[in-house]
Amino acid sequence: MAQRVRSWWGWGWADAALDGDACAALAERVAPFLELDGELAPVPEVSTMDAPRVAPPAALAPICRADPLTRAGHAHGKAYRDVVRNLRGELANPPDLVAYPQGEAAVVAVLDWASAAGVPVVPYGGGTSVVGGVEYRGGGPWLSLDLTGLAGVAEVDEVSRAARIRAGTLGPAVEDGLRGYGLTLRHFPQSFEFSSFGGWLATRAAGHFATGHPHIDDAVEALRVVTPVGVVESRRVPASGAGPAPERLWLGAEGALGVLVEAWVRVLPRPGYRARAAIGFAEYPDAVAATRAVVQSGLQPSNCRLLDALEALLGAGAGDGTSRLLLGFESADQPVEALLARAVEICRDHGGTVVTESTVEDWRAAFLAAPYRRDALARLGVVVETLETACTWAGFAALHAAVVTAVAELGGLVTCRFTHVYPDGPAPYFTVYAAGRRGAEVAIWAELKAAASDAIAAHGGTITHHHAVGRDHRPWYDRERPPPFAAALRAAKQVLDPAGILNPGVLID
Amino acid sequence: MAQRVRSWWGWGWADAALDGDACAALAERVAPFLELDGELAPVPEVSTMDAPRVAPPAALAPICRADPLTRAGHAHGKAYRDVVRNLRGELANPPDLVAYPQGEAAVVAVLDWASAAGVPVVPYGGGTSVVGGVEYRGGGPWLSLDLTGLAGVAEVDEVSRAARIRAGTLGPAVEDGLRGYGLTLRHFPQSFEFSSFGGWLATRAAGHFATGHPHIDDAVEALRVVTPVGVVESRRVPASGAGPAPERLWLGAEGALGVLVEAWVRVLPRPGYRARAAIGFAEYPDAVAATRAVVQSGLQPSNCRLLDALEALLGAGAGDGTSRLLLGFESADQPVEALLARAVEICRDHGGTVVTESTVEDWRAAFLAAPYRRDALARLGVVVETLETACTWAGFAALHAAVVTAVAELGGLVTCRFTHVYPDGPAPYFTVYAAGRRGAEVAIWAELKAAASDAIAAHGGTITHHHAVGRDHRPWYDRERPPPFAAALRAAKQVLDPAGILNPGVLID
Repeated sequence: MAQRVRSWWGWGWADAALDGDACAALAERVAPFLELDGELAPVPEVSTMDAPRVAPPAALAPICRADPLTRAGHAHGKAYRDVVRNLRGELANPPDLVAYPQGEAAVVAVLDWASAAGVPVVPYGGGTSVVGGVEYRGGGPWLSLDLTGLAGVAEVDEVSRAARIRAGTLGPAVEDGLRGYGLTLRHFPQSFEFSSFGGWLATRAAGHFATGHPHIDDAVEALRVVTPVGVVESRRVPASGAGPAPERLWLGAEGALGVLVEAWVRVLPRPGYRARAAIGFAEYPDAVAATRAVVQSGLQPSNCRLLDALEALLGAGAGDGTSRLLLGFESADQPVEALLARAVEICRDHGGTVVTESTVEDWRAAFLAAPYRRDALARLGVVVETLETACTWAGFAALHAAVVTAVAELGGLVTCRFTHVYPDGPAPYFTVYAAGRRGAEVAIWAELKAAASDAIAAHGGTITHHHAVGRDHRPWYDRERPPPFAAALRAAKQVLDPAGILNPGVLID
Repeated sequence: MAQRVRSWWGWGWADAALDGDACAALAERVAPFLELDGELAPVPEVSTMDAPRVAPPAALAPICRADPLTRAGHAHGKAYRDVVRNLRGELANPPDLVAYPQGEAAVVAVLDWASAAGVPVVPYGGGTSVVGGVEYRGGGPWLSLDLTGLAGVAEVDEVSRAARIRAGTLGPAVEDGLRGYGLTLRHFPQSFEFSSFGGWLATRAAGHFATGHPHIDDAVEALRVVTPVGVVESRRVPASGAGPAPERLWLGAEGALGVLVEAWVRVLPRPGYRARAAIGFAEYPDAVAATRAVVQSGLQPSNCRLLDALEALLGAGAGDGTSRLLLGFESADQPVEALLARAVEICRDHGGTVVTESTVEDWRAAFLAAPYRRDALARLGVVVETLETACTWAGFAALHAAVVTAVAELGGLVTCRFTHVYPDGPAPYFTVYAAGRRGAEVAIWAELKAAASDAIAAHGGTITHHHAVGRDHRPWYDRERPPPFAAALRAAKQVLDPAGILNPGVLID
């Protein structure tokens, strides 16, 4: 069987990109809303590239590659700005080397050499960062550390329901390795097909389940991290009160404090009981209040995703102007119809009406196809990107209004959905659309993003609920982070990475 | 109304200590099991004490006390070894000063002065540490920082279900401040009546609810900490993926990285629906398997406490030799009988039988009275103390056997209960009893504790699930903690507390 090829410039599989006809159809649908600037941009070829500025030592040469396509594929993540830059052939600073360790010893060897040689190392899992997490913006040669060779579910403890999984395992392989045991990690971020287990941990990813523990952090039992000064291995216990939790220093450290090589995580029996419904609300504030009431009821729906009217229209074809709450319950042990019925009752108390369930399917299909459509829109010159936050329920209305206003003032359209909900607040996820001008797309997006981020920060939201900080969120992250914590992080970095080679520019300068 | 007086030497209220008759009755009950060495020790008077070796500056003098009774009451925590030392008048190193700040500014002033003067500061909330967390074991003068003046629920966000609570608020005042809103923090450690909100956070305390989020960590939305180099204030959001979680560096830092002054925590509606049952099991392994099955079912009982046969006998008067699983469910929104019925069904599948519910009440009464009984046993010369851990389900049987053997080899008796259970493992809690010899009790206990702790460590358990590290757990904590994490913590301490005055000896030397 021929292996499917990943797109070096855009999302996912190369063969899944929208073809010419599909792009033309999309252009027709978009034209009434947004002016298009010119024709469909061609799919780019990798242009010539400067020779690598550094060569690996003999011991590492067998695991390193430096061909242009490999280097181009590791130059950027998969944000809108990355796709636009790739489409325009703007590969200003590709990695000089891409290393493919097949085990922990090779990771240690790479860090040893890089520390001695002063070569920055940027860990790369699935490469799906949308925040500049896998590109290097400093000067001089650098190495992209592709961890996909550290792959697979290494061990399963069926009694304790936990699994040891290697960092480079992509989402589908995680589930493939657990399925035979009747188990699942139940962590399904939108990037699931192409993102890696280690990347989830390094960026504190959140799966698409709405409540409970959406962040992968809470599934972690123990982890193993290679740092330039030694290996971190935390003890495998269900919980501990022994000092600050060691795992929490590396969860979210985005490769700046070490390279995660594997972790023990809690896994679950595969659910056999399911129930779901879609609820329509004529008024958005009612929909928000209903969503809050459901999550504060203690019912713990697995899905509790509120789409505003524009999101429901564009994403799920709901043309009646209502907001839609998609509700789902799951259990491996007992029926869940009664739980759904209670949640629906709460929604009815807030003016909701059960609508046809196809919203759920329509929305899910659109959800998974969204990144491919995003790439096609980029080729059409449209500015389209997402941003996300979390805030308190008390603060949501003002934050939402401020983001909508900030984007509208710059001529953009914005939709909102809740990707996750907590008893104390939602995680609003915004999709921004704007007309582009060829060559100015990145600048237009940067202006929109800055305005929306300022609005979020001014209204008490976090700069990211699950996209991570990377390099793009640094200005807002640096203001959000308490200064003494920044000082502690810098001090930790100094002792763990004395040569300063680990993903310089993310989190810490 | 006369204010009740706290015992300076033992647990809780001075007037709740067992009186002479009660002690005599207890002696009669214990005598068949454990040889008693001599008579009931008298309740001690505070002996004369060396004069303080340091005086506060004029600005702090109004909030400082140095009378012997205040100093004696802040010299030790409330572990068995503390009570024994107090009973023997062994107050080797009481604080020279006890400061009572009434607000954050005074905390800042104390740390400023202490940093300049090089005087160690040991934060003191309810003073209920059982691991040497509130005593200082270095040389030279030191100050105990009593935070009970920073008290009360300062603010409630009813929409987002969160509350801002000051660090020195004791358990009952936390609930008093929330009750009027129909809300509860639902955090009830055994020490609830006398321990403080800030102490819970600093030590990663666990409430008595068995599943869900027993550790207070997971209730924290944001915190505020005074360090010698500035104030930490994290942003109040329901969740974030922006770098490593700042809160997690201070949760469990036991005052070594700053003084927690207040925090926003998630609160809950008070439950109105409840159901409970007690299940007897003839065979302990069946009881363990049933408990595991219940917690892995996803049912989330609020109480799921397994008592082994000896614990059931001594703690709940169950004389039939069975192990007892105490199950409870609660909800503020919906009836829970069906959940209990499903849990009971699981227990029956594992050989369990529903027994009279009074076990629950008997056990709860004994649970709350246990520390007072412990003090009386200490006066009778009996060695009695608890220790606790968490381990995987796969590792529990071997760990349990090793602890029982280690204690038995030294002539002790040990009972076990699960205080908390997780899908991946239990938190076993051991009570150790041994005959004492007057004057040698502390040494006898130290030997038992070391043997049990070595057994726990050898079998993959953590040195503490919720008692914290303090000074007593340092040898095992230092081995459990990954060395690069220790280096990171030391580096953080260096920048946050350059003079090294914050609770020296806990976590970090």
